[in-house]
Amino acid sequence: MIILGYIAGILTTTANIPQLIKIYELREAKDISTLTYSLLAMGFILWIIYASYVDDLPLLLANVFSLAIVLGILILKFEFGRGNSERETKAIQLIK
Amino acid sequence: MIILGYIAGILTTTANIPQLIKIYELREAKDISTLTYSLLAMGFILWIIYASYVDDLPLLLANVFSLAIVLGILILKFEFGRGNSERETKAIQLIK
Repeated sequence: MIILGYIAGILTTTANIPQLIKIYELREAKDISTLTYSLLAMGFILWIIYASYVDDLPLLLANVFSLAIVLGILILKFEFGRGNSERETKAIQLIK
Repeated sequence: MIILGYIAGILTTTANIPQLIKIYELREAKDISTLTYSLLAMGFILWIIYASYVDDLPLLLANVFSLAIVLGILILKFEFGRGNSERETKAIQLIK
């Protein structure tokens, strides 16, 4: 059953890649929660420190990889985070 | 140093709560990747099965909790996933 643990680990580690790609392609990240990805980044940093102390290489590598993706999402969020401007929202209201 | 592991676990487990709240408040989830949250849900389900086999209660509970949040996000994504309509996008273009 240990294989299940590995597959689970690969899934939860790589899951954020489609989100990163989506933001990059849409050039929009208005609905993305900065707090969520900041908490994830802090969590992964702590996992990395913990993994170094307990000398667990797979745990270390998985979390370095996850951290890289999540930092990428945070950078794109700052780049494309703004939604419709006030003027755009008003234009939408007008045609409703 | 084991405390670091616990804090890391709490952070990465609860991180998606602000994302869930944000979608609910904005009533919008256009920029959210369905694939990302589907992969996370599959990953958490496998972690739950794995945790049951190796009889690891903390791992089981953490993943049941994570799965609940991620399923909540997926439900809201189906509810509020649509972005600006074609007409709204045209209105935005007009004022640019």
